Amino acid sequence: MNLFRSNELHQLAKEVFLAMGSSEEHAEQASDVLLAADLRGIDSHGVSRLIGYVALWEAKRINMKPKISLVREHKSTFTIDGDSGLGLVVAPYAMKIAIDRSKAYGSGWGAIRNSNHFGIAGYHAMMALKHDMVGMAMTNATPFIPPTHSKEAMLGTNPIAYAFPTSKEQPLVIDLATASVARGKIEIARREGQAIPEGWIVDKDGKTSTNVDELKDGGMLTPLGSLEELGSHKGYALGSLVDVLTGVLSGANYGKWVPPFVSFLPLLNNLPGKGLGHFVGAFEVEGFRPVDEFKMSMDHWISSFKSANRVDENQEVFVPGQKENMAQLIREQEGIPLNDKVLRDLEGLDEKFKLNIL
Amino acid sequence: MNLFRSNELHQLAKEVFLAMGSSEEHAEQASDVLLAADLRGIDSHGVSRLIGYVALWEAKRINMKPKISLVREHKSTFTIDGDSGLGLVVAPYAMKIAIDRSKAYGSGWGAIRNSNHFGIAGYHAMMALKHDMVGMAMTNATPFIPPTHSKEAMLGTNPIAYAFPTSKEQPLVIDLATASVARGKIEIARREGQAIPEGWIVDKDGKTSTNVDELKDGGMLTPLGSLEELGSHKGYALGSLVDVLTGVLSGANYGKWVPPFVSFLPLLNNLPGKGLGHFVGAFEVEGFRPVDEFKMSMDHWISSFKSANRVDENQEVFVPGQKENMAQLIREQEGIPLNDKVLRDLEGLDEKFKLNIL
Repeated sequence: MNLFRSNELHQLAKEVFLAMGSSEEHAEQASDVLLAADLRGIDSHGVSRLIGYVALWEAKRINMKPKISLVREHKSTFTIDGDSGLGLVVAPYAMKIAIDRSKAYGSGWGAIRNSNHFGIAGYHAMMALKHDMVGMAMTNATPFIPPTHSKEAMLGTNPIAYAFPTSKEQPLVIDLATASVARGKIEIARREGQAIPEGWIVDKDGKTSTNVDELKDGGMLTPLGSLEELGSHKGYALGSLVDVLTGVLSGANYGKWVPPFVSFLPLLNNLPGKGLGHFVGAFEVEGFRPVDEFKMSMDHWISSFKSANRVDENQEVFVPGQKENMAQLIREQEGIPLNDKVLRDLEGLDEKFKLNIL
Repeated sequence: MNLFRSNELHQLAKEVFLAMGSSEEHAEQASDVLLAADLRGIDSHGVSRLIGYVALWEAKRINMKPKISLVREHKSTFTIDGDSGLGLVVAPYAMKIAIDRSKAYGSGWGAIRNSNHFGIAGYHAMMALKHDMVGMAMTNATPFIPPTHSKEAMLGTNPIAYAFPTSKEQPLVIDLATASVARGKIEIARREGQAIPEGWIVDKDGKTSTNVDELKDGGMLTPLGSLEELGSHKGYALGSLVDVLTGVLSGANYGKWVPPFVSFLPLLNNLPGKGLGHFVGAFEVEGFRPVDEFKMSMDHWISSFKSANRVDENQEVFVPGQKENMAQLIREQEGIPLNDKVLRDLEGLDEKFKLNIL
């Protein structure tokens, strides 16, 4: 593993976005979102994605100089058109408006269309924390999951994130994909030549499979719940919830029409909407409960879950987001590890754009 | 099976609530919620629960003449104290305020404390539909699920419901418990002497078990995702999300302190809040997108999912809530089936309160 300081990778990312035509402000914002993923240990959504954004830009699927606009509004609610910009830029833009609306109306909720991949959902939700607000973010994504009883990819990993402010404890950050397993875990199994548990994937006919290579041959991920008997219809329902709130409510694409992140996959015909969809929101704690009281109660909630009786005395009970908070503390000190493939990709970008950073 | 007209069961339920001291209005409302469950085929949450509410009333854990009050507010957000009333009454009360706030501010969100079991979450969410709004409802519930790596019941089945208005299609109603399996399914397996799949339950030591009898001996349900390798931490995170939004935000109890529905289980000491917690909300579609356009887009979303390629040509692909919508059409025509145990329970209540309805 190769260790890098986060500010070094931030500079690289920023220069890449600038080279593609981003404004200073947008390049800074987009790099912030990527580095937040790397710092929090969510390696699949950090600088490793840079080559993907570059490929989308080369395929003319991303507008690096978007005119992001508020196209509709009613007090606590509004819709944003991202003008085909980076989701890394469009989503924080909408989240800032949601925070402003919260100050005025107690809560603020933005549906976003005509956007692209927005990085980790948790970043956007966490923007609310410093305002003593609860933050929320969702997005639809590349179709890769069939509904229960179907063999057609109709839903993405459609994540849901919420962030809650606390007093002495680290904030509670809930950020989960509505798939049963992260692609990263499957990739590790593939690299190490291991079989995977039944329930992670299905083959192109929708049959459960333990062979990772099926993913290259039309195989798909399963919804959270994994198998019909273990509740896959609930993960399918959650993925649907996200797809409707992000895609239908905003006027973005939804279902099988969501534009894929990988640039070599073509868009389907008869698109029902524009680009990818997000849904973000924030609400002031103060509208429900005095902030200090709420934060102390959050601390108590967190400590009670951390100290819940253990199955195995040596295996601690984590609260959601705790591992990511721990990764951040370590990586801020020790640096961010990149595997060889990611490093080669970044060196390629460094060369392509003649940056001379790495 | 014994078939009953829904208005007959509604009358019975209403008379039982009146006999316990409910006002006419509250008895009508509470019965509406129960019968909605029976009509939608969610038998575990309909009139079969009446004896449970009666037992809680006898244990002096429910106030049949609650003074429900708005204790805090800021435009689109507010908190309700249910005064220990039936959740069946308190949640619709809050939902009506959320709908009013939506008309004024685009959206309305209510945290509710000091309540009790509120029936099916879907009922409350669906209250928004006729106003061309999206509705949302969540509740915490009897602790019966341990966090990943824990053997202590810290979360209930904590459901999440959303309802979306449509044009020609039936409304899209998403209503799911964040447990891997419904207790009803386990009960059926127990009655029929069948083993259950690995992943549904754990024993009192937190180890996975296929023996339903473990539930009587300290066993527990698993979070959605069921096993660690299949993503149980995500179901745990979703249950946590609901617990924090319903319990911590409102000032209700949370985690292991949530008051159990069964009246013979004692309350824990040092309760951190008041009663059970709910979180409800509504928002106008119009604040995001013209209503007619949204509804047609919802129809298209639904029809595209229903017609997704099938794994087995003979097994149709359902959208969330479709089976419940189908049950309702049938049961409105043919009546509501009650099994012998439920019928005996209801006959017992009929006799106890000298109603002479059955």
